[in-house]
Amino acid sequence: MNAKTDFAGYTVGYDIPALPGMVEADIQTPCLILDLDALERNIRKMGDYAKAHGMRHRSHGKMHKSVDVQKLQERLGGAVGICCQKVAEAEVFARGGIKDILVSNQVRDPLKIDRLAQLPKYGGRIAVCIDDVANVGDLSAAAQKHGTTLECLVEIDCGAGRCGVTTSEAAVEIARAIDAAPGLIFTGIQAYQGAMQHLESYAEREAKLDAAIIQVKAVVAALQAVGLKPDLVSGGGTGSYRFESGSVVYNELQCGSYAFMDADYGRIRDQDGNRLDHGEWENALFILTTVMSHAKPDLAVCDAGLKAQSVDSGLPFVYGRDDVKYINCSDEHGVIEDKRGVLRVNEKLKLVPGHCDPTCNVHDWYVGVRNGKVEVVWPVSARGRGY
Amino acid sequence: MNAKTDFAGYTVGYDIPALPGMVEADIQTPCLILDLDALERNIRKMGDYAKAHGMRHRSHGKMHKSVDVQKLQERLGGAVGICCQKVAEAEVFARGGIKDILVSNQVRDPLKIDRLAQLPKYGGRIAVCIDDVANVGDLSAAAQKHGTTLECLVEIDCGAGRCGVTTSEAAVEIARAIDAAPGLIFTGIQAYQGAMQHLESYAEREAKLDAAIIQVKAVVAALQAVGLKPDLVSGGGTGSYRFESGSVVYNELQCGSYAFMDADYGRIRDQDGNRLDHGEWENALFILTTVMSHAKPDLAVCDAGLKAQSVDSGLPFVYGRDDVKYINCSDEHGVIEDKRGVLRVNEKLKLVPGHCDPTCNVHDWYVGVRNGKVEVVWPVSARGRGY
Repeated sequence: MNAKTDFAGYTVGYDIPALPGMVEADIQTPCLILDLDALERNIRKMGDYAKAHGMRHRSHGKMHKSVDVQKLQERLGGAVGICCQKVAEAEVFARGGIKDILVSNQVRDPLKIDRLAQLPKYGGRIAVCIDDVANVGDLSAAAQKHGTTLECLVEIDCGAGRCGVTTSEAAVEIARAIDAAPGLIFTGIQAYQGAMQHLESYAEREAKLDAAIIQVKAVVAALQAVGLKPDLVSGGGTGSYRFESGSVVYNELQCGSYAFMDADYGRIRDQDGNRLDHGEWENALFILTTVMSHAKPDLAVCDAGLKAQSVDSGLPFVYGRDDVKYINCSDEHGVIEDKRGVLRVNEKLKLVPGHCDPTCNVHDWYVGVRNGKVEVVWPVSARGRGY
Repeated sequence: MNAKTDFAGYTVGYDIPALPGMVEADIQTPCLILDLDALERNIRKMGDYAKAHGMRHRSHGKMHKSVDVQKLQERLGGAVGICCQKVAEAEVFARGGIKDILVSNQVRDPLKIDRLAQLPKYGGRIAVCIDDVANVGDLSAAAQKHGTTLECLVEIDCGAGRCGVTTSEAAVEIARAIDAAPGLIFTGIQAYQGAMQHLESYAEREAKLDAAIIQVKAVVAALQAVGLKPDLVSGGGTGSYRFESGSVVYNELQCGSYAFMDADYGRIRDQDGNRLDHGEWENALFILTTVMSHAKPDLAVCDAGLKAQSVDSGLPFVYGRDDVKYINCSDEHGVIEDKRGVLRVNEKLKLVPGHCDPTCNVHDWYVGVRNGKVEVVWPVSARGRGY
């Protein structure tokens, strides 16, 4: 957990949506709620899967940005540590007691490099990705300055189309430079195929991952040929982990969204053609919202709009309801089609957000509920830490 | 201003992007920056316009969520007060010393009504919108309980398609109920045509507003007929204020985005067919971002993705550059097409966000710059106050 939150200074409805012990009906909206039973089942299931397949699972903290959720993933799901995308996020997790942290991204700004190089002083293992040999010297100098060691993964672009090198030659060049640099350790490869995670068809995703695996195997062979066998080959997401775990070459998964689920991941198909949120994973994260206007008989307006979520991957759906539909949103309004006029003002609805990561990022708190009661209220610890 | 920020507890690059007095080059990204010269010119220009047209300007605080920006709008632009969308926002502004606050939205939840009814105790004028006669009794009871007075505007749906009544009869019924309710004052009409603000063509926007004006005039006539002449007829945005100010029936504008501008408003056309950000208003708000990877010669990756902005109204554009283009984004990455390979790692770019309101809402700070130096750092005071 985070240092235990002192709730004495918080006012419900001003700066916090609920306090532990409250009944669910008193939660102030819009806010994020977690179904703790579903969350724990998801976490245990991924943990069991990784263990059964001999994989490390480094859960992705960019999704939840929460020290408390990460600790649950370590305790119940056997997660070996965390990956995250920014130095400031890594600082939040290091300060929160997480002992194995990978910044699965590039760090180039001098101040950020300096901050990163200090993180091992919190007593854990700190790793970072590199895709440019010019970065090696800066990281090495900072580690030496602070008397620390940074582990380094060479990032391969295996289809995501953003950071990462594309050839074995470039990977070997960087790995050699890392290996020769004081204060740095060459630890392995970062190879995350992000672009395919959201393809609806299982077979299409599998084909993209097969191509990535061929590429990763070639890089590993080239590294082995120069005596630099990678300890970690890390990657994999909620849409692909079954392929990485069967690849032989990967040994670490980085799944995040499986724990919460969202509308975009929910609609993709598993091996049997079922929606991913119908069996494989459960919806554990919701935006709780309240109907605040019903001036038109067939249209309700709720209090969760653009500032309560990110709609980059589409609108949310109303959980457990086929009779009403979230059809439009503006800054602070969600418009809900209610053809039969069944909704009432002040009625609460649970929305499944289109994309969990940037949705969690606009909230300050998770309200964890079980059996109709607020059991925990956890800070979104790294929200605002985008540096 | 807010109570003066004590910067002693903040670390640059962890929880704040810059401190006053720093040079622009040292600002940590991604973050919001304000061009203070442009911002002040925009604010003065709207103030002069409203004055010249005999209109009150109640600047919209949902856009900036900042006590400091609002005070600038009052000081330089003659803004008479603020409107905002949520009770928790109104509380932030009341605590910050703003003396005329309209919650331009429905408030139905009992706890929120109770909080709203306490706000006049901060010494200002507090108003709220109503679109359901059932709301009147609850607001009246809360005002009486706290010994305060709430001003009430009947909300008309004049084309936005969310809250608001659509007939003069319904408006009169609610106004009469307000007028008869202890603790409440019938103050006027809220009539904001939100759906048309972003139409590209000036003529199309004008036609939509003409229809709204006919509707608003009918409601005003019906109210006058029963002795309830509205003091305020309030509405208008950055895409429409010229129509409301020429309508005779409106007397209060609610423009927000004009002060910062964004890519979506920037592309709409003024009366002469020019882009709105080419003459009428200036870009004053930017997401400052840094190139963090250029592993592919024609593609740069910057550090501002979905968690540094909202892309509901489209991707940002790179300000002042025709040679590079922001073409894709994921949670923490922005992919920039750089066909000629002109960008360098650690180079900073200014992005104009697609939609300013929900973009400002993901950040904690505005960094105000002038002549290459950080002049002010203002909190996004109401961020997270979505209740």
